[in-house]
Amino acid sequence: MGTVLGANQYGKAENRVVRIVRDTPRHEIRDLNVSTSLRGEFTDAHVTGDQSQVLPTDTQKNTAFAYAKLHGISSIEDYGLALGRRLLEATPAATEAEVRIEEYAWDRIGDHDHSFVRRGGAVRTAFITVGRDSASVVSGVKELVVLNSTDSEFKGFLKDEFTTLPETDDRILATSLVATWRHTGTSVDWNASYDAALAAILDTFAGTYSRALQESLYAMGTAVLEAHPGIADISFAAPNKHHFLVDFSGFDVEGLTNNGEVFIAADRPYGLIEATVTRQ
Amino acid sequence: MGTVLGANQYGKAENRVVRIVRDTPRHEIRDLNVSTSLRGEFTDAHVTGDQSQVLPTDTQKNTAFAYAKLHGISSIEDYGLALGRRLLEATPAATEAEVRIEEYAWDRIGDHDHSFVRRGGAVRTAFITVGRDSASVVSGVKELVVLNSTDSEFKGFLKDEFTTLPETDDRILATSLVATWRHTGTSVDWNASYDAALAAILDTFAGTYSRALQESLYAMGTAVLEAHPGIADISFAAPNKHHFLVDFSGFDVEGLTNNGEVFIAADRPYGLIEATVTRQ
Amino acid sequence: MGTVLGANQYGKAENRVVRIVRDTPRHEIRDLNVSTSLRGEFTDAHVTGDQSQVLPTDTQKNTAFAYAKLHGISSIEDYGLALGRRLLEATPAATEAEVRIEEYAWDRIGDHDHSFVRRGGAVRTAFITVGRDSASVVSGVKELVVLNSTDSEFKGFLKDEFTTLPETDDRILATSLVATWRHTGTSVDWNASYDAALAAILDTFAGTYSRALQESLYAMGTAVLEAHPGIADISFAAPNKHHFLVDFSGFDVEGLTNNGEVFIAADRPYGLIEATVTRQ
Amino acid sequence: MGTVLGANQYGKAENRVVRIVRDTPRHEIRDLNVSTSLRGEFTDAHVTGDQSQVLPTDTQKNTAFAYAKLHGISSIEDYGLALGRRLLEATPAATEAEVRIEEYAWDRIGDHDHSFVRRGGAVRTAFITVGRDSASVVSGVKELVVLNSTDSEFKGFLKDEFTTLPETDDRILATSLVATWRHTGTSVDWNASYDAALAAILDTFAGTYSRALQESLYAMGTAVLEAHPGIADISFAAPNKHHFLVDFSGFDVEGLTNNGEVFIAADRPYGLIEATVTRQ
Repeated sequence: MGTVLGANQYGKAENRVVRIVRDTPRHEIRDLNVSTSLRGEFTDAHVTGDQSQVLPTDTQKNTAFAYAKLHGISSIEDYGLALGRRLLEATPAATEAEVRIEEYAWDRIGDHDHSFVRRGGAVRTAFITVGRDSASVVSGVKELVVLNSTDSEFKGFLKDEFTTLPETDDRILATSLVATWRHTGTSVDWNASYDAALAAILDTFAGTYSRALQESLYAMGTAVLEAHPGIADISFAAPNKHHFLVDFSGFDVEGLTNNGEVFIAADRPYGLIEATVTRQ
Repeated sequence: MGTVLGANQYGKAENRVVRIVRDTPRHEIRDLNVSTSLRGEFTDAHVTGDQSQVLPTDTQKNTAFAYAKLHGISSIEDYGLALGRRLLEATPAATEAEVRIEEYAWDRIGDHDHSFVRRGGAVRTAFITVGRDSASVVSGVKELVVLNSTDSEFKGFLKDEFTTLPETDDRILATSLVATWRHTGTSVDWNASYDAALAAILDTFAGTYSRALQESLYAMGTAVLEAHPGIADISFAAPNKHHFLVDFSGFDVEGLTNNGEVFIAADRPYGLIEATVTRQ
Repeated sequence: MGTVLGANQYGKAENRVVRIVRDTPRHEIRDLNVSTSLRGEFTDAHVTGDQSQVLPTDTQKNTAFAYAKLHGISSIEDYGLALGRRLLEATPAATEAEVRIEEYAWDRIGDHDHSFVRRGGAVRTAFITVGRDSASVVSGVKELVVLNSTDSEFKGFLKDEFTTLPETDDRILATSLVATWRHTGTSVDWNASYDAALAAILDTFAGTYSRALQESLYAMGTAVLEAHPGIADISFAAPNKHHFLVDFSGFDVEGLTNNGEVFIAADRPYGLIEATVTRQ
Repeated sequence: MGTVLGANQYGKAENRVVRIVRDTPRHEIRDLNVSTSLRGEFTDAHVTGDQSQVLPTDTQKNTAFAYAKLHGISSIEDYGLALGRRLLEATPAATEAEVRIEEYAWDRIGDHDHSFVRRGGAVRTAFITVGRDSASVVSGVKELVVLNSTDSEFKGFLKDEFTTLPETDDRILATSLVATWRHTGTSVDWNASYDAALAAILDTFAGTYSRALQESLYAMGTAVLEAHPGIADISFAAPNKHHFLVDFSGFDVEGLTNNGEVFIAADRPYGLIEATVTRQ
């Protein structure tokens, strides 16, 4: 009984593409992390060592940098679609190209024309798949760290002999959100769409009384889908960044209480809640 | 048009379980990172906020620690199966429990009975899925960093207008390997199986003249499958950790050459090769 | 010839203190990483194992959390001074307490009263040393990633037989700045002082034509010292985050040029420039 | 009142130098992370922007790679001394060169001639300072993670109103050790010296009944100094990697106890103990 090649793909990961637009004295900057890969009929490369159908990962890297100029980066989705189409076109054996992009935001320093400070915080993402007759775009955000300091409870849960967690009416709810939403088409004002989805996520997180992180995720997903008919579904991965109330009861200090005021932010373990919200 | 809940799961991630076996003066240590999650009918938790079917992630954590004693850790696969079955049994709404485990190896210091030094290097992994009438086990290894200092070439590849990579007959081939292999059953001598698979991977990597990382992966996969009838398939994710020959030609030093002797180990970007080898 | 104990200190590192001020419905948040240590006469703890003079690191941790309520956190400098004084007072054998604090900034989500999104970007720091009759405060910032997309050159440098770097009239200058400045006293409006120093650093970085990162650091230091008589000196550690112009010359695309528009952001190695600016 | 330049230095950090010795079919590998810096009279570079005395960090990088061949790497101390001397010689304005090196160990795969697997675990370090008429070498190790599963207590400590830690007669003692030792001279068999010091540290950690991590550090330091007359002093930084006994008392399982068998390995906060042992 022999062996055969199953699913496979190859590409260049984490090309750190920085594009300066300097057509006028007032520069613009786009700062990306671009990963590409190709899937298709690459059996020979694996089995006989014949690389004649393999566009090198080094060439994929070169193309990512060249396309930052040739096509430009009006949005990571638009750039990613162009890059994916190009890689597929250049590689006859490939049936699909995949492009993953992270974008790091920068703010202008004061009103200086060519000086920037990295914003930090949330990272914008795009995940583009291009086939011979199709293309799909999933936009998203990650490292979006949000926190409600009240209006979160967790009670009425299932209990067994290992359950020791007390029920609570008031806790901190915090997460470092990863959200990804799938567009139904590719004719989208990508930057406006991203801004609107991000705003809906933030506003709904803040405005939802939460009986569990699950409920907050579902509310956020519903808000995005209701406002954006061009989005088919949205998925979340949300680590529950536990903030434990510090126990002051053992301290010998008269009158010292901790009424939801001092917390320890824990690292591990953490709850991890994952959910997709889709249309009926 | 309304919204509905799609795929979802929840659990506790990265429980750092350390088990000391001290039944005799000569202690043993098992050092794990355990993540569990449950899938099933949890719509109410998301939509109405009703948590009555939700076994808290805190309870999942408690169970992971309790089972390190109650069931013990003869292997991460065996412990993970027991833990997954327990979580499923404790949660009527769940249809599937998933357990992911990393194990960090320690060496005894000299012949001391209760002193250990962490080995570092490769991390052993297991990924267990337990359903109401089924269970599957995927064993694996990650952070297995291997390097061949010769017997690797890359040439004869596809070229386009962005290709600048020179062909090479002799390069360093290095990767930080992630390998995962799926067992057909659950009655396995897990520790012996792991040791044998790891040995086959290392020996095949070392013994294969490589015309591309793809060819090395396929050879390693074939070696594991041929030696282990109980393994259904094996998947690799292999970043090509590029070691670039340093260019000495610009140095004004008579007789100084670099014949495959001095390299710079690069961080990003890196090639990323992924492949599954399966049975015919 | 015997051995003796030399310099030593001990404490609790990385207490993740989160303080919610909830005296009104409009909450405030302070999010800190607090490390404390004590120095003094602790020979017995090391040599004979006698811990009677050692205030446990666990108690130091408890004190850090308790003081977030008892003293409050109007600024990290003010809180750190109070915490250091308390630890010194509680530990007769100690001659000095050291407190290191990082503060992570959060923004309010819209106009919501108790919802926040972590800002990311620069981290504010303080390093406080309290002695029996003295105290010193060093304020600072780290992970302040700044970039000028032009107005930076590097030429006229020393050359030897290993020098291959071409001179350049126009490059990207970028760094992830660590800056620390030492106050002459402890009666300072800490938050206003920090805001002003940070603004001076950013504005000077942006406004300085740079012939080397060294020159930019010196200009920033001078700007801070000139505007703030209460600051004795300022130190910088500045990794030169290299952005290399991507070479398009090998691409077979007519008219494709790279006039300072597409760069690869490199990881390692990186230049590392360190300098202190002080008063005459 | 003007400003002046204070302490300053500059260099290239984290050159990832990989050296393959391939004089025979049986290859050897040395895998280093090399950082160099220069100190001296560099006021002009900072104040007037004149770089004529500045050997570029890019040249320092080139020299690090060239010397891996020209001088070779018999040990990181020997290579670092040669590299520091060269950089000082090439830079008239410099008064001191500093070289910091980390070395990552690799094991041969089986008996293969040119195949290696990275060992992981402890990283060997060297810190070399070369002046015009002097040189000093500090050898060391880091990421040496060690654990005793018994023979560690912590009791009899100082208590105040914030102390809640129970005394304990039996706990896990674990740390990720950083140790650095200063040689009195530069004529040393560096590899043999390192092996012996590491062995003394490990054996003493294992063999010492510990009433606090401080006591273990002092014992390790004494052991190294007593065995090695050429070592002047040794310094340790030791995070106390807390392993907390998991509380089983809340579980409703008859007979379930936790007698020092199941622990949770905590991340933050951690005790941090630092001490130097020197000669009388």
